Amino acid sequence: MLGTMQDVPLLISRILRHGATIHARSPITTWAGEGREPRRRTFAAAGARSAQLAHALHDELGVRGGDVVGTCMWNNAEHLEAYFAVPSMGAVLHTLNLRLPSEQLAFIIGHADDRVILVNGSVLPLLAPLLPGLPRVEHIVVVGPGDTGALTGARAAVHDYEDLIAGRPTTYDWPELDERTAAALCYTSGTTGDPKGTAYSHRSIFLHSMHVTAAEAMGLTLADLTLPVVPMFHVNAWGIPHAVFMSGTGLLMPDRFLQPGPLADMIAAERPTHAAAVPTLWQGLLAELAERPRDVSSLSRVAIGGSACPPALMRAFEEKYGINVRHCWGMTETSPVGTTADPPPGLTPEEERPYRESQGRFSVGVEARLAGPDGTFLPWDGTSAGELEVRGPWIAAAYHGGPGGEPERPADRFSPDGWLRTGDVGVISPEGYLTLTDRAKDVIKSGGEWISSVALENHLMSHPLVSEAAVVAVPDDTWGERPLAAVVLSDPADPADPAEATEATEATYRELRGHLGERLPRWQLPEHWTRVDAVPKTSVGKFDKKVLRARYAQGELTVVTLED
Amino acid sequence: MLGTMQDVPLLISRILRHGATIHARSPITTWAGEGREPRRRTFAAAGARSAQLAHALHDELGVRGGDVVGTCMWNNAEHLEAYFAVPSMGAVLHTLNLRLPSEQLAFIIGHADDRVILVNGSVLPLLAPLLPGLPRVEHIVVVGPGDTGALTGARAAVHDYEDLIAGRPTTYDWPELDERTAAALCYTSGTTGDPKGTAYSHRSIFLHSMHVTAAEAMGLTLADLTLPVVPMFHVNAWGIPHAVFMSGTGLLMPDRFLQPGPLADMIAAERPTHAAAVPTLWQGLLAELAERPRDVSSLSRVAIGGSACPPALMRAFEEKYGINVRHCWGMTETSPVGTTADPPPGLTPEEERPYRESQGRFSVGVEARLAGPDGTFLPWDGTSAGELEVRGPWIAAAYHGGPGGEPERPADRFSPDGWLRTGDVGVISPEGYLTLTDRAKDVIKSGGEWISSVALENHLMSHPLVSEAAVVAVPDDTWGERPLAAVVLSDPADPADPAEATEATEATYRELRGHLGERLPRWQLPEHWTRVDAVPKTSVGKFDKKVLRARYAQGELTVVTLED
Repeated sequence: MLGTMQDVPLLISRILRHGATIHARSPITTWAGEGREPRRRTFAAAGARSAQLAHALHDELGVRGGDVVGTCMWNNAEHLEAYFAVPSMGAVLHTLNLRLPSEQLAFIIGHADDRVILVNGSVLPLLAPLLPGLPRVEHIVVVGPGDTGALTGARAAVHDYEDLIAGRPTTYDWPELDERTAAALCYTSGTTGDPKGTAYSHRSIFLHSMHVTAAEAMGLTLADLTLPVVPMFHVNAWGIPHAVFMSGTGLLMPDRFLQPGPLADMIAAERPTHAAAVPTLWQGLLAELAERPRDVSSLSRVAIGGSACPPALMRAFEEKYGINVRHCWGMTETSPVGTTADPPPGLTPEEERPYRESQGRFSVGVEARLAGPDGTFLPWDGTSAGELEVRGPWIAAAYHGGPGGEPERPADRFSPDGWLRTGDVGVISPEGYLTLTDRAKDVIKSGGEWISSVALENHLMSHPLVSEAAVVAVPDDTWGERPLAAVVLSDPADPADPAEATEATEATYRELRGHLGERLPRWQLPEHWTRVDAVPKTSVGKFDKKVLRARYAQGELTVVTLED
Repeated sequence: MLGTMQDVPLLISRILRHGATIHARSPITTWAGEGREPRRRTFAAAGARSAQLAHALHDELGVRGGDVVGTCMWNNAEHLEAYFAVPSMGAVLHTLNLRLPSEQLAFIIGHADDRVILVNGSVLPLLAPLLPGLPRVEHIVVVGPGDTGALTGARAAVHDYEDLIAGRPTTYDWPELDERTAAALCYTSGTTGDPKGTAYSHRSIFLHSMHVTAAEAMGLTLADLTLPVVPMFHVNAWGIPHAVFMSGTGLLMPDRFLQPGPLADMIAAERPTHAAAVPTLWQGLLAELAERPRDVSSLSRVAIGGSACPPALMRAFEEKYGINVRHCWGMTETSPVGTTADPPPGLTPEEERPYRESQGRFSVGVEARLAGPDGTFLPWDGTSAGELEVRGPWIAAAYHGGPGGEPERPADRFSPDGWLRTGDVGVISPEGYLTLTDRAKDVIKSGGEWISSVALENHLMSHPLVSEAAVVAVPDDTWGERPLAAVVLSDPADPADPAEATEATEATYRELRGHLGERLPRWQLPEHWTRVDAVPKTSVGKFDKKVLRARYAQGELTVVTLED
């Protein structure tokens, strides 16, 4: 027996219509740098200009349902117009990550089959050199001032955004689409292989946006002004651009002014109440404020995600500035909000701390399970560590297959019953709080149990002798895998006599092992140790453990194995 | 091109699972009367007991997918268990309105084809007499103490709720249903004809619940304790029981203690932060508090809906008790939340008032239009009055057709393009605020314009000579319809000489017409006047205008028609 309710699809055009009418006066402010007047528009204007853009794309550039329109843009009002116009007209918005290496950028433009690219003038130097290798890109729409000289001789037609949309009708008869239609594409770089694209549907974005506004997630209200520092090319700026059109929350857009100094100026001038960014951004802002104080008292809460927030950063925000930090976890494949670290009610600030420092509790649409080393699912007991798998209406089921291609479901990312394998390893408390301990590819699988490389590294780096440490799995006949600790010693005793040196180093290893032994169970302690001059790192500064594993496999490391 | 997202249906079992795990410790407190210990359970317990109930219904009573299970219950923990168990197992929950006349109650039990009815012991005297006429009701499950003597000889088997669920498994393998499956049935009495049933789907309830938690609607948080005084048999208690399992908000259940005194005691003892009820309930509570003060300082906000909230009531709440009143509009066919009167930001309390006193702005899923007297759609200009039509994923498309019957789409309730005709007449401001002015059946259609009977009545009743007034449409050759004002004079000058009396009365009508003329456009002023001893009323105390119209048609009223 079916219900008697209306069969109204969940479409981005409905989010747009709601924001542009019900919250017509809510502001969109795009920062233009200190001392220059920001561009101020309203949600109503964004609605009108989105319609104009859709007419231009349709009538002038020939964009039709299913065509992919790329954006190579900062967080600004025009990017927001594309966010609404492109999916609402039935096309697919492809947000290009400006920070990808250029060969990856070219790859994803080709793989997604972008026919039109909207590009901020300031980003032209990045995009222009790629175009000769991308013959299927037909139109480049330049948004804002920039040197278009680099585009001379480009096969693609070049347009100015404002000229293109000027004078067109300010309403558009948005089509009634199937809510499962692709609305937006976002690729992740990944550490191996080509980037993979997640194609968000109208449905997934609508539901995720409803969740983002909820108190359980960001709690956005009509009285808020939110500052998404997290880029709109990075998982839809965590859903904020769509969510504010539901909640009426004002939007403060930083454009390209993402350095700590300009950000601090903007916060002091425009007084946002809420902001969202990755930890490193906030670290930089705190350092800036320590050096040159500004009034950031308007901020009452910030969302932090993208990577784990150091507890010291959280404390500094709360104690120095009275800003409540909301820790979130998610990934491109989860739209992204999967968990939020809201503590249970009725606790003191100190009691709240461990809850706040965890990754938090799962969003209402998101189910979770932990797959243990042997593939069985583990209890939520706060100690059983497994790979996090998630399911829900805004979780990816596959990767985009490119034009004409079938969606890809690699077995290491999607379980046979359709859950997303996150690649994150952690524990879940009986109260449902997730604490991530490692990446699945880095965890050490020893005798049917998992040892967290991250926990070993953090404890090693808390020892005064160690400046850096990375722990990787090495094969072991008895246990399957065992940990190898690679340490950078801060003040190595390095006698001239090699025998003495070896003995001194071995003594250091024993001391470090003892240090770990006070903090972790005996079976987790590394027996294999090596000294390195530096831990190898990826281009974004993360430990590159696959290089360490390769150097071990090729016998390039001097390994000492301690007997018990 | 479809998105690559998981196809996970929006099911009530997912709301249940979320609440029972992520918000396991959130409380459900059922009041048991002053001086008795309330029944205290957690969301986790509700989850376990819902599973037990589902097993009992399935294994013991033979309930299968699509079967209808009625509830004849107050707001309490067991009713909540049925709310989750019945739809989650694929059956349909039918909440029986205890306040319907008994023949209507019997009608809806038969029309919905209830096979099982869960009934609070205290409500047995209401239900038992109906059962002999309802041969298809197979099982009566009595919840809580009550005199089951009235059921002696009933054809239906009688069970005790606690006995029935005891010892059964506390988990249930909830089926993956089509999200459009009917989850819950609610009938409206209507003033004419048989009650009509709306069959909410899993999808509509899921989406509506997400909205209810949002700041734009009730803004329910983990730190709140909410008191739904609005009955769970009345449009799902405005969605609160489902919504709290999303937000983790604690639930305070009044059970049958709905009189102002016991409610005040409960509020003082349990300290809810949020509550929801109809205006008359709050009127009663304010009167009770004025007479015998209690500490209601825990309440920070209340949702008021069901009928328009008198401004004086809103002021009293805000000024005397510091409680923020959130006015809402909705109906059974809209799940119910259709609008919420949240003022724009940045206003003073006085500036906020007209926004707060309006019906508010439309919910994110709800589109609205005003159909004018000639069927064209009117602008949102704050003055053009039309019948409100709405569309959205939690708005009804039809009425339940009963077992084997097709859904019913009466043309006066559903437009040819599928919008719901609300039967409410009003205006919408350019900012999207709805102000209702009349019911469509009561509006006076004069010369292609609509005159609000309610506005005329309110202005008449503000005159010292008038104690009650009702205005109805009467046929007019020139204008189609014109207003007839029926007034109850508070101190009628009634000379013995009939001619003098007539003259005096006519002078009063002229004075009243002059009073109206200072407040409303000339073309809206009634020319037809009559005196009545009392305005006829319905069983729930509303003006019964169809009786007045019938008395006019039958020439039973002494009508004076004023010349200009």
